[in-house]
Amino acid sequence: MSIKDDVLKIAVSAKEASLSLATLGSEVKNKALLNMADALEKNAARLKQANKKDIDGAIKKGLTKAMLDRLTLTDKVISGMAEGLRQVVALPDPVGEVTGMWKRPNGMTVGKMRIPLGVIGIIYESRPNVTADAAGLCLKSGNAVILRGGSEAIHSNVAIAEVLNSACAKAGVNEKAVQVMPMIDKEAILELLKLEDYIDLIIPRGGEGLIRFVSENSRIPVIKHYKGVCHVFVDEFADMDMAKNICFNSKVQRPGVCNAMETLLVHKNIAKKFLPMMHEEYEKAGVELRGCPKTKAILKGIKDATEEDWSAEYLDLILAVKVVGSFDEAISHITKYASLHTESIVTNDYANAQRFLKEVNSSTVVVNASTRFSDGFQLGLGAEIGISTSKLHAFGPMGLVELTTQKFIIYGNGQVRE
Amino acid sequence: MSIKDDVLKIAVSAKEASLSLATLGSEVKNKALLNMADALEKNAARLKQANKKDIDGAIKKGLTKAMLDRLTLTDKVISGMAEGLRQVVALPDPVGEVTGMWKRPNGMTVGKMRIPLGVIGIIYESRPNVTADAAGLCLKSGNAVILRGGSEAIHSNVAIAEVLNSACAKAGVNEKAVQVMPMIDKEAILELLKLEDYIDLIIPRGGEGLIRFVSENSRIPVIKHYKGVCHVFVDEFADMDMAKNICFNSKVQRPGVCNAMETLLVHKNIAKKFLPMMHEEYEKAGVELRGCPKTKAILKGIKDATEEDWSAEYLDLILAVKVVGSFDEAISHITKYASLHTESIVTNDYANAQRFLKEVNSSTVVVNASTRFSDGFQLGLGAEIGISTSKLHAFGPMGLVELTTQKFIIYGNGQVRE
Repeated sequence: MSIKDDVLKIAVSAKEASLSLATLGSEVKNKALLNMADALEKNAARLKQANKKDIDGAIKKGLTKAMLDRLTLTDKVISGMAEGLRQVVALPDPVGEVTGMWKRPNGMTVGKMRIPLGVIGIIYESRPNVTADAAGLCLKSGNAVILRGGSEAIHSNVAIAEVLNSACAKAGVNEKAVQVMPMIDKEAILELLKLEDYIDLIIPRGGEGLIRFVSENSRIPVIKHYKGVCHVFVDEFADMDMAKNICFNSKVQRPGVCNAMETLLVHKNIAKKFLPMMHEEYEKAGVELRGCPKTKAILKGIKDATEEDWSAEYLDLILAVKVVGSFDEAISHITKYASLHTESIVTNDYANAQRFLKEVNSSTVVVNASTRFSDGFQLGLGAEIGISTSKLHAFGPMGLVELTTQKFIIYGNGQVRE
Repeated sequence: MSIKDDVLKIAVSAKEASLSLATLGSEVKNKALLNMADALEKNAARLKQANKKDIDGAIKKGLTKAMLDRLTLTDKVISGMAEGLRQVVALPDPVGEVTGMWKRPNGMTVGKMRIPLGVIGIIYESRPNVTADAAGLCLKSGNAVILRGGSEAIHSNVAIAEVLNSACAKAGVNEKAVQVMPMIDKEAILELLKLEDYIDLIIPRGGEGLIRFVSENSRIPVIKHYKGVCHVFVDEFADMDMAKNICFNSKVQRPGVCNAMETLLVHKNIAKKFLPMMHEEYEKAGVELRGCPKTKAILKGIKDATEEDWSAEYLDLILAVKVVGSFDEAISHITKYASLHTESIVTNDYANAQRFLKEVNSSTVVVNASTRFSDGFQLGLGAEIGISTSKLHAFGPMGLVELTTQKFIIYGNGQVRE
């Protein structure tokens, strides 16, 4: 069989599985999730053995220590995966929820009911724990999932899928509900992305290169975010201590993630007071600042910010800093350079807080809190399958509900159109 | 300038207009809509003059009478357009609506707020009245719109856009909020479909050929429906009179539209009673039946239904008829052949009604009413910009709300991540 046929076979069986998944009761899905969690822990030795093959291969290929770390399945990582699945059990099942119902003048009752999307394809890099996390969220929301991890994790991912499959089957769930693509060729991804008749949504997770490759080649709708160029704007009416804590946390707490701040905007009326104080904190944490001319007039000796810095996603202890002359200038800067991910204002002024919430149309807009809260768990979605900075279907962190759609339901008693 | 540059110029100015549109108050938008309605009526003579050029061209090209009818702007069509805009004024403005708000354990308040999508491209055929309808809905929902109608209606569409633009400007709305592409080359559509950095959504409206062309060539998300193969299932527990009315209405009331019934499924236990009675009604209305062998055993002399008939969208007084042995067989047939548009069951059995609503995952699922109710106005959305049979973003008839997305908003008081 060709790669094309193999991929088609996976997609056809996923679509078939999705039909029975759509009507499964929550109890059955929860039983399957608990089975999956137990099976991962029971099969830890087998998973680590498969993982060893990937590690050996990765060492030969000369992967960095950070990449090896992310690839490695330890007992702790495995029980983390199991724990993640058990947490999904506790989340409410979105499928079948009726989100609204209204009466029409002719006596019909019309409502909207949540249903699964169908088949979801997830294309991701390195970390094999994504395999279990994504499988759990898709199963709970009634979707079949096709997982295509990085080629360097192929043995681990296939082993995880085998364990999950038999755990599903024991709960009476079609084992094709969760499938890992075992082919490592890029051609297999290209074939998958053509199968719009079988797959309803593609979610790429990884670097910008992977995401661009997927979205340029897909005939299936893609939910994605390329990068997070998040801003904090310290308004002239900010509480200085609060601003210091929020700016520090947004940049330093975990600089390598998409919801970390990359550009700091400071109102000119408080810049002379705020910037030296903030600079001191950042210096202790090893943050390199790159400033606009007005910033440099206050913080002598820091690097220049170039035009590229305003749209840079450093993912590192580097921060672009700009002094703005007004609230409007801050909004204009954000409108021009932001990636629609997350922007925060620190202010005690009621009108400015409300204007910021209204006028900044990023997927998460924050008043007086760290950008780091832009995350499915932190926002209370209970889980996160990804984040969208495209506005269609979902915008911002995506939980279980974002893996569903809604159909119209009509209860009539014989109505016909005039 | 090349076509590419011209198209880019339109898209750039639309994006710019969308930024100011996003924060316009409802009063300003409503004022603009009322101005637009008045201006269309005041400029009726000018519009009919431009339309005459299109009509003359269409006659030369040998368009059918039906096509000429759809193309013609009469005083009645023009006041219909104006009336449509006035109705949009009366609809609630979805922008800024906070659809939910919850408290996090750390004291933050998190909510979701509706915002416009940004720039919407609408690609459609013939009818110039779509130009005003779509412009009104996009404006009310705070979106800029780029309209590309059929080349045969180009003079009419450009004239309508000119009238709408100056009416917008008089209300203080950026006149680039509504733009008609004046280029008739297909190349212009192809260029438009590449501009993912400026346009957020494409809605094609027209025949299957146009929709496939758009969705195969677009880098921008497309919301579409190819066709409506709608089913009515007359269950064994149906009220015969109700079934007769619903089946008649679903097929005959307006056969040329996507929510008309194309396949009738009848439970075997009532087929002998129901089919002859229904056949009599259909014969009076000139409906041609094409039956499965079991149907033909009851209704002698009707045509055979072939495999193609089960997925045919006739848009005409033709109906495929199948006798099914069970409720499950009806569901299987629908799952296999339906276009995810609209399916209806006629039954007095509580369990079957609930199972049908749950198990049929078309965008509109109906109990005891005509399929013809699958329509934005009939469902109470107040308006309809199109219908989606793809599950992402919107599924089913789309009103104003479906032209928006939601951002997360966070009210904090200094929270940082641990």
